[in-house]
Amino acid sequence: MTPDQHPVSNQTTYRVIYGDTDQMGVVYYANYFRWFEIGRNELLRSVGLPYSEIERQGILLPVSEANCKYISSVCYDDEIVIETSLDTSVRSGLKLDYIIYRKADMQVAAKGHTLHACLGKDGRVIRPPAFITGPLKKASRKADV
Amino acid sequence: MTPDQHPVSNQTTYRVIYGDTDQMGVVYYANYFRWFEIGRNELLRSVGLPYSEIERQGILLPVSEANCKYISSVCYDDEIVIETSLDTSVRSGLKLDYIIYRKADMQVAAKGHTLHACLGKDGRVIRPPAFITGPLKKASRKADV
Amino acid sequence: MTPDQHPVSNQTTYRVIYGDTDQMGVVYYANYFRWFEIGRNELLRSVGLPYSEIERQGILLPVSEANCKYISSVCYDDEIVIETSLDTSVRSGLKLDYIIYRKADMQVAAKGHTLHACLGKDGRVIRPPAFITGPLKKASRKADV
Amino acid sequence: MTPDQHPVSNQTTYRVIYGDTDQMGVVYYANYFRWFEIGRNELLRSVGLPYSEIERQGILLPVSEANCKYISSVCYDDEIVIETSLDTSVRSGLKLDYIIYRKADMQVAAKGHTLHACLGKDGRVIRPPAFITGPLKKASRKADV
Repeated sequence: MTPDQHPVSNQTTYRVIYGDTDQMGVVYYANYFRWFEIGRNELLRSVGLPYSEIERQGILLPVSEANCKYISSVCYDDEIVIETSLDTSVRSGLKLDYIIYRKADMQVAAKGHTLHACLGKDGRVIRPPAFITGPLKKASRKADV
Repeated sequence: MTPDQHPVSNQTTYRVIYGDTDQMGVVYYANYFRWFEIGRNELLRSVGLPYSEIERQGILLPVSEANCKYISSVCYDDEIVIETSLDTSVRSGLKLDYIIYRKADMQVAAKGHTLHACLGKDGRVIRPPAFITGPLKKASRKADV
Repeated sequence: MTPDQHPVSNQTTYRVIYGDTDQMGVVYYANYFRWFEIGRNELLRSVGLPYSEIERQGILLPVSEANCKYISSVCYDDEIVIETSLDTSVRSGLKLDYIIYRKADMQVAAKGHTLHACLGKDGRVIRPPAFITGPLKKASRKADV
Repeated sequence: MTPDQHPVSNQTTYRVIYGDTDQMGVVYYANYFRWFEIGRNELLRSVGLPYSEIERQGILLPVSEANCKYISSVCYDDEIVIETSLDTSVRSGLKLDYIIYRKADMQVAAKGHTLHACLGKDGRVIRPPAFITGPLKKASRKADV
């Protein structure tokens, strides 16, 4: 980030249900990736660019890599905070970083990221077009105003 | 069923994973409906009519009703038997009946059914076409030969 | 319901993610049962009786039957309303009724119910104890005050 | 690996259901982590050490990190091969590597890994005990005999 840039980030919450847990009494590891999706949906919506709109424009952003480090466990009925940030250093496709907190004590439960290819109408990899990068750049400058 | 008809049915197995369980230490109730889908996929495949082929012909069979009665619990690493039968008395759409057994003792764990509308290429409800009813009828007569 | 009774009900919302959909472009049928769980969690919380507290008291309320009728489809990014009501005519165990609406147009997407056995500390079926029935009865009288 | 060591690995298959897919028409990215679990369950079972037995001995192996690179997509009704290998260079906890192939053409669909902490009866991190490392070491020598 240059000095006039600010992180594009978003916080949203989710309440853990029984269906998210497993018999270890904590949330099943694969379900954190569902939360990462909630986080990026809300980050994109917060900059005026809901993913449903991106798809309507013929662009897909499939996940090319996903990673999660599990730090402390999350239990049934816990409210969690999903903090999602855009990694502005990545130009080809998108990289999003996630931190999952337990809301009650703001203890970090997990950290992860996803990489996304940008596919155009013919299914080929392209650079993210201006209608995507524009709102993200604008959001990274907003705090200056 | 008339005297010369036989049930169109199929048995297939599945091994329960951690991700299927919840913190009660048994399988989460919604996951039985995934097993019902495994069952109907395999029943259709067994009569030479995989659902992927039905879709290629432009027909969709969305679920219009789903029901499950939970009788005894299923645990992590249990192998289950999914028994699926076609209810040949239903003519508009499809009705499938399911019984879930624990393989080790053949104890019934759950019973349920799904009803499916039959949607044609324009998304309107139609009678199941001959390419679907044919193989199912043939299968119901097979045991006579 | 006698004339002085009122429905114990709750409305909560949920935003559909990609992970809820299937290749038909709509929400996978089994996922509605996750929403039913969200609904009953919030209904119980709204009467001061979160299910986590019920479990801490040694009581389990496993699902003994689940049913869903699918009326109109729900898509990615739709916001839905989950309306959950207690069926006060059922005394042994609990019965909950659910209606899923699309929030944008309040179109009914699905209707369903779940039946729950009430298991005591030794795992045997019991009548729901007073610490459960009390808050539910109180909530059904609240509107009179 | 020293010259007399051989990889501890396992191959198992799974048939993709509708419930695994999303509206992009391919398998939802989080579901690959369920397949990784199927893979490690079967690897452990193949060396005579089912995870259910590990738990009965009071040991838990929660996931501390999970990673997946998505290489080519997997569709409804595809049969996949889950190849799981133990990384014998990791001594504290366990590391498992996964490759997902489409069975029809043995095209690689995804590669990933999971790291697992080893928790003893008091919930503290321990070195994997001999009843776990023994069968794994034995399996790595088996091909010599």
